[in-house]
Amino acid sequence: MSAFQDIAAFDAALANLTRADAAATSAARARQAELTKPAGSLGRLEAIALFMAGWQGRERPLMAPARAVIFAGNHGVVAQGVSAYPASVTRAMVANFESGGAAINALANVAGLDLKVVALDLDRPTADCTKGPAMNEAECLAALSAGAAAVDPGLALLVLGEMGIGNSTAAAALCARSFGGAGSDWVGPGTGVDNAGVTHKAAVVERALARHAAAPMTPFETLRRVGGREIAAIAGAILRARQLRVPVLLDGFICCSALAPLAVVAPAIVDHCLAGHVSAEPGHRRLLDRLGLDPLLALDMRLGEGSGAALAAGIVRAALAAHARMATFAQANVATAG
Amino acid sequence: MSAFQDIAAFDAALANLTRADAAATSAARARQAELTKPAGSLGRLEAIALFMAGWQGRERPLMAPARAVIFAGNHGVVAQGVSAYPASVTRAMVANFESGGAAINALANVAGLDLKVVALDLDRPTADCTKGPAMNEAECLAALSAGAAAVDPGLALLVLGEMGIGNSTAAAALCARSFGGAGSDWVGPGTGVDNAGVTHKAAVVERALARHAAAPMTPFETLRRVGGREIAAIAGAILRARQLRVPVLLDGFICCSALAPLAVVAPAIVDHCLAGHVSAEPGHRRLLDRLGLDPLLALDMRLGEGSGAALAAGIVRAALAAHARMATFAQANVATAG
Repeated sequence: MSAFQDIAAFDAALANLTRADAAATSAARARQAELTKPAGSLGRLEAIALFMAGWQGRERPLMAPARAVIFAGNHGVVAQGVSAYPASVTRAMVANFESGGAAINALANVAGLDLKVVALDLDRPTADCTKGPAMNEAECLAALSAGAAAVDPGLALLVLGEMGIGNSTAAAALCARSFGGAGSDWVGPGTGVDNAGVTHKAAVVERALARHAAAPMTPFETLRRVGGREIAAIAGAILRARQLRVPVLLDGFICCSALAPLAVVAPAIVDHCLAGHVSAEPGHRRLLDRLGLDPLLALDMRLGEGSGAALAAGIVRAALAAHARMATFAQANVATAG
Repeated sequence: MSAFQDIAAFDAALANLTRADAAATSAARARQAELTKPAGSLGRLEAIALFMAGWQGRERPLMAPARAVIFAGNHGVVAQGVSAYPASVTRAMVANFESGGAAINALANVAGLDLKVVALDLDRPTADCTKGPAMNEAECLAALSAGAAAVDPGLALLVLGEMGIGNSTAAAALCARSFGGAGSDWVGPGTGVDNAGVTHKAAVVERALARHAAAPMTPFETLRRVGGREIAAIAGAILRARQLRVPVLLDGFICCSALAPLAVVAPAIVDHCLAGHVSAEPGHRRLLDRLGLDPLLALDMRLGEGSGAALAAGIVRAALAAHARMATFAQANVATAG
């Protein structure tokens, strides 16, 4: 089953989350204790190795095949003037991804990731969420299924990213509807609006929240009402990865916002996810805190496209290399702490 | 001139610091403005590209040849019981580096760095700095020169690291003598002493400071009195790299402590240096703040060996890949912000 044919299938996926392989995690922990370094001295690299071991079910987890998937969608809410860029940029950037000229192309290449670009009905933007649901049920299920379809069994790592002019507004609405707070708590400059633009975005988010306040507070309804196709696809990819025990590396605010409605009812949804970075978008730190995720990198990036996650994939690769290749104290004849 | 034949040569190197190539930095900045992303959206990756461009003197800086050098030394101050490990571990770990079994071997390999190990008179530890100078003048000059000799013209990047049981005590003494503060402000668990051990280390540092309080407060005297061979070698390598305009990527607390006495008289010594990470050793954050360096990574690492810097080299590589390979707005026919 790789599709979400109905809402019940989506709800069932969220209600039946797999767990990491405890035996593999234990074996990896035992190996770590034997490697030629003071215990714990590789810090988060050690935790990453255990995380990957548990989800892959291997004492020495692999880094290949690793895939980055960038989902792209267009947003009706751009009619409210929430972005510094015209909606046509979504398609132009998808073309840039496909011809290899974007940041994610360079960063995925350096990290050894296969790059897959999934453009979702770019000619058919979602509806304006300040006036009604962004998607009808079929559209949202199709987006969730498109996300699931991008995940194959046996992936060592799934890196997720997005492109969609206007989607930082949708992400803010998702976070506010899921975790509460005002629009102003969750909006930011996005790709580059000024202070007045940020204030305007907050008002737009408030209007969207008010428009849907009476609707059921379920993950599906939140995704379809104030989300977007690429965000729903990320949610679908995360759920499918969980079914397949594929570890996930998350990108920035918009990517992580797909988890917000899911985490409200199933906080354990984040257990197979690493936060690649915390972006400069101010809502991201707040969102990561609510999700209980500690980002690997903090480099003031705010591009999206999976760029921060792809960069963090290099950290994961290094963590696994140290875990797999280091000598043990016995092999190297090095004394342990006295 | 690649050696420090006398103290005057060392002082002259510190007094005559090269500058980055402003034209190359400007050309790189102009290129960044044309790449298909919102201005500034790659955050510190953009700053890294400009930094590398300036020191290499190239609009599109290179990542090869890149070298990691690990300097190793032994410390007489271990007689004061400052480490959880016996001094014999220094030599054993050097053998581990040479046979490829250490963390730095895996991390340097992943980062595409050539690894050079320079063991400095391991059979002849420095003197106990609580009882007299750690090194005489000739020994300190030899260590500085060994550091300089490890740097070749044309290196794209120099990654520095160290190994030396007891050297977090020497590093704390260097910091305290350079920047002030009590021993307790600068000591920490190192490779793993407990709270009582940390208190003891602070007292040992205080004794060392008192022992040398009347000596001249010059960079050379501080290095030779309370430093160590591997730390002086790092200082020599940093100075030689500056002469050659080779950008430097620094590792943790001990590596960075080599800069402390230099920065007191020449704060601009850090201008060709990036801090690869901030380690879990508590003095490192304080030291970076005093040096004016903002670390690229914060992953709770505390191993040394150049491990955090080698990991950060992957970030530098990614930054340069994005800078060199991304399409411009004109090439990709993407609209700019409206």
